[in-house]
Amino acid sequence: MKEKKVPDIVARRLPRYYRYLDDLLKKQIYRISSSELSRKMGVTASQIRQDFNFFGGFGQQGYGYNVEMLHKEIGTILGLYSGRKTIIVGAGYLGHALANHTNFKKRGFTLIGVFDNDKEKVGKKICNINVSDYDDIADFIKQNHPDIAILAVPRSAVKEVAENLISLGIKAIWNFSYTELDEQENVVIENVHLSDSLMMLSYKLNNIE
Amino acid sequence: MKEKKVPDIVARRLPRYYRYLDDLLKKQIYRISSSELSRKMGVTASQIRQDFNFFGGFGQQGYGYNVEMLHKEIGTILGLYSGRKTIIVGAGYLGHALANHTNFKKRGFTLIGVFDNDKEKVGKKICNINVSDYDDIADFIKQNHPDIAILAVPRSAVKEVAENLISLGIKAIWNFSYTELDEQENVVIENVHLSDSLMMLSYKLNNIE
Repeated sequence: MKEKKVPDIVARRLPRYYRYLDDLLKKQIYRISSSELSRKMGVTASQIRQDFNFFGGFGQQGYGYNVEMLHKEIGTILGLYSGRKTIIVGAGYLGHALANHTNFKKRGFTLIGVFDNDKEKVGKKICNINVSDYDDIADFIKQNHPDIAILAVPRSAVKEVAENLISLGIKAIWNFSYTELDEQENVVIENVHLSDSLMMLSYKLNNIE
Repeated sequence: MKEKKVPDIVARRLPRYYRYLDDLLKKQIYRISSSELSRKMGVTASQIRQDFNFFGGFGQQGYGYNVEMLHKEIGTILGLYSGRKTIIVGAGYLGHALANHTNFKKRGFTLIGVFDNDKEKVGKKICNINVSDYDDIADFIKQNHPDIAILAVPRSAVKEVAENLISLGIKAIWNFSYTELDEQENVVIENVHLSDSLMMLSYKLNNIE
């Protein structure tokens, strides 16, 4: 199946569908009705049908969804099986935690390099990868063509690092540096703002007290 | 101003508004029109007006928004100035990274304890706090009444830990453990799924190639 351009809001629900289907497979559940999936996901069954229609359906009348097929198709749409090569810039606690991310490999991403400009960190091992000197990143990118760069650098450094990586040909940036980077032509960016979720928790806590 | 129950989808935009207003203040911008704010936020000006109306407005005709006031009001609605006491369970790289989170303190949260069941970690310092034995957490909670627990424990442990903390009176859980915890009566939960954002990045990368 060839994916087509879908609204951002629909696309943003796909990782969540994928996660739920992943959980179902782990529990060896191979069929699910749209109403059951909707109950688990907390969205309406008609929403789910509408969402899946963007990708050509997946549903079989009176039978429900084939979990394995749906899982694989959504994974393909999300580009999870294309063996994306990733690098991490910033070998502090966060960089280290992200490298250890249990789902990283399972989701089809391969970590091929970790970089830091702190000479004390260079040479140390993270997930069986030696931390390299950030000064050598241009050569590394030219030789190894990573697809995705994960930025776990201080806020003050992120713009400069991002510009450097983009000029070296990096097309996708996963940014954890508390500074919103803007997307550019032919470069995609996901800015992660952990404190948004903490603020939401605080808001909800206020509302139950 | 007293907050009232707002739709979840509106509430979820508040942290982002807060962040943008924070950035404006840092740049010493004290007034902003709804059209300018809308351009920066990538939502329509009418959306912004509608959102703010849930909280009683904030806008002044022909003048725009007072950034400082708006920042403070949204912060108050989000419960950021109530000095919430937090603890972290799990002193691995992720727990360590979260403790170091630069925005943590700035957002009005105070870290009062870090716990782990790994005796090798107990006694070590994270952000000037000694890591305590998880076995002592019941006493600690009884004496110190933390509001929020941050879970950075392995997936296999998270349900047990969450149940334990809830039984000890914890009302809010920020969960990083790759397992969705369900909300319960009088307990609020935010599940963080980092890989959702990585999957989105992968999807967007597929779409520009």
